[in-house]
Amino acid sequence: MNGYFDYNASSVLRPEAAAALRAWVDGGGGNPSSMHGPGRRARLAMEDARRQVAALADGATSRDVVFTSGATESNNTVLRAFAAAQHTSPIVVSTIEHHSLLATADDLERAGHRIVRLPVRADSSIDFSEVTSLELAEGANVLVSLGLANGETGAILDLEALLAACPPSALVHLDVAQAAGRLPVEFAGRVDALSMSGHKFGAPPGIGALFLSSRMRGILRPLLTGGPQEWSLRAGTPNVPGIVAMGAAAEASLRVRESENTRLGALRDSLWQRWQAAVPNLLRITPAGGLPNTLTMAAADCSADTLIAALDLSGFCISAGSACAAGSPEPSHVMKALGLDPRWYGGVLRISAGWATTPADVDALADGLIAVVQRAREAA
Amino acid sequence: MNGYFDYNASSVLRPEAAAALRAWVDGGGGNPSSMHGPGRRARLAMEDARRQVAALADGATSRDVVFTSGATESNNTVLRAFAAAQHTSPIVVSTIEHHSLLATADDLERAGHRIVRLPVRADSSIDFSEVTSLELAEGANVLVSLGLANGETGAILDLEALLAACPPSALVHLDVAQAAGRLPVEFAGRVDALSMSGHKFGAPPGIGALFLSSRMRGILRPLLTGGPQEWSLRAGTPNVPGIVAMGAAAEASLRVRESENTRLGALRDSLWQRWQAAVPNLLRITPAGGLPNTLTMAAADCSADTLIAALDLSGFCISAGSACAAGSPEPSHVMKALGLDPRWYGGVLRISAGWATTPADVDALADGLIAVVQRAREAA
Repeated sequence: MNGYFDYNASSVLRPEAAAALRAWVDGGGGNPSSMHGPGRRARLAMEDARRQVAALADGATSRDVVFTSGATESNNTVLRAFAAAQHTSPIVVSTIEHHSLLATADDLERAGHRIVRLPVRADSSIDFSEVTSLELAEGANVLVSLGLANGETGAILDLEALLAACPPSALVHLDVAQAAGRLPVEFAGRVDALSMSGHKFGAPPGIGALFLSSRMRGILRPLLTGGPQEWSLRAGTPNVPGIVAMGAAAEASLRVRESENTRLGALRDSLWQRWQAAVPNLLRITPAGGLPNTLTMAAADCSADTLIAALDLSGFCISAGSACAAGSPEPSHVMKALGLDPRWYGGVLRISAGWATTPADVDALADGLIAVVQRAREAA
Repeated sequence: MNGYFDYNASSVLRPEAAAALRAWVDGGGGNPSSMHGPGRRARLAMEDARRQVAALADGATSRDVVFTSGATESNNTVLRAFAAAQHTSPIVVSTIEHHSLLATADDLERAGHRIVRLPVRADSSIDFSEVTSLELAEGANVLVSLGLANGETGAILDLEALLAACPPSALVHLDVAQAAGRLPVEFAGRVDALSMSGHKFGAPPGIGALFLSSRMRGILRPLLTGGPQEWSLRAGTPNVPGIVAMGAAAEASLRVRESENTRLGALRDSLWQRWQAAVPNLLRITPAGGLPNTLTMAAADCSADTLIAALDLSGFCISAGSACAAGSPEPSHVMKALGLDPRWYGGVLRISAGWATTPADVDALADGLIAVVQRAREAA
């Protein structure tokens, strides 16, 4: 049995990515900036991977893709570059974004930059009305920076509604860390930047990408200066093993994207039906139409930490929300922003499945959770 | 035969690092921020690696080590954090530093920060007199940021002379990318920060470290904000495979550091003696006492590009200097700063050996270079 249900924290390494990493290890490396044979081979492998990663977004080409250390670096790069280039232009985020957007927005706000935080409705949808009514100073623009899929709830951004609400000149940046390889991602034309992390779709951690439109390139100031790597947009010797593994994982994810969504959505729905039938006082938080691999819910009168620890002893890995905030006794900022009644705070569980999840794994988790919730409630 | 002589661009992956990477791939990953079993195992592996990396610097403990994507990120973090925290305090670099220090200093200077660039003597030593005579504004301090070993020439910084020249309050930051795992590196007490890249000593590219004294921690503002990873000093899911491989490479490098320096120094000296005897008009640039693995020299009346391409066809990998500037027709900023006579500019070659280099490899390179220089000069 494979009891790993924490794909939104990190996917199990895909066999294709593992094979690419092993091939790189066996090949012995090479610096892609070097002129000689090993350098050229590393460069070619990197450019193949860039095409594979570009294919994750509709309308993107490999010229749009800059490799970074992950979505956190990509998000920091976009927000900090925009703030440095456009002092009087606000940055719009929402209250349910990943820490790498919110903490960076907080940091820029402390330095005097205007930040707008869009509120969220109880159904996890974002209220865009403040974007439409934004008053911009003469010559100012706006950057809207939002997650396409929320890692904690699985809610998917209504991109059409967002684009309709935005002023025509707005720069739109999507954090697609939880969407890349799982959902169609729009890039060319209406979206100016994308941030992603390879480890969310089966590559190793430590590698990511930033997609940039020519308009966004025009204002981008690199976060890391130094050598001329990545068209001088991101200095530093590239993480070639991570890059080739990310390319392989991207291609593998894309090949099965549709069928996996159908398969994982059906498993998720059957899981939820079993729990609804067997466990009283459960609240489903993942909205209908959310990420098919994700089921976030809350169990009343239970401590999520106790449930997670008990399931861990039985070989199941689930989480209470973002891995970045794991271990914190505070309710997640996402759950607070959704207006969740505090009685549910302590019992929020996120189950996120992926490519290696089988129906038998889901059945075992269904039984396991029913047992641990019952035990926890009896003990209370 | 192993004709790779470009270790200063990137080391051949060490078997110990390859084994650590393979073990991570076989283990299937895990996010070290997660609370469950795979998360805890990833965290333990990371902390073992942190101890192994800390051992590279005398007086450092694992609490001093923050993992980054490489020395470029570490250098950017130190310079940008210091500039943000101390607006009126100058930053001192030298004219022969790596691009990640120089381009970042240039960038900060454009933003109004005071940068002092120390000149270099023909023997590759840095003239520190300007540090001693610095006039600091009331309440200002100074950051001195220099490479401990120069990647292009192999020259080693005279740290005692630097420390004697510095005001007592100065913060000293060393870029030890070319020194870590090769030379003793001082940390505790007199040095406040170290930057390093794993791929220079046998780990894969894309992983590095930043060592911080408590004084430097006090002023550090993270370059990447987001989750609380690395004591909130560097957000983003850690590159666990890179980290465990860097730990293994650090331990392996440290174990043989002394004996490798003796072995590689003897090979380097015999190579230079053979070439001096067989090839007229060669200039040795690497100073006596420089990195034992490095031999940088110039051949008059030769194009380095032609020699490198010809050697590449015979299976040898050498370079004309920093990989970050490879392919550029300009002479390197280091060679210009050394005051090298322009007649040598075009013919600068850097040979850098490492753990996998054998005496037979060196003999073959000796013959190979003699032949290609002769051919190039006959053709001219």
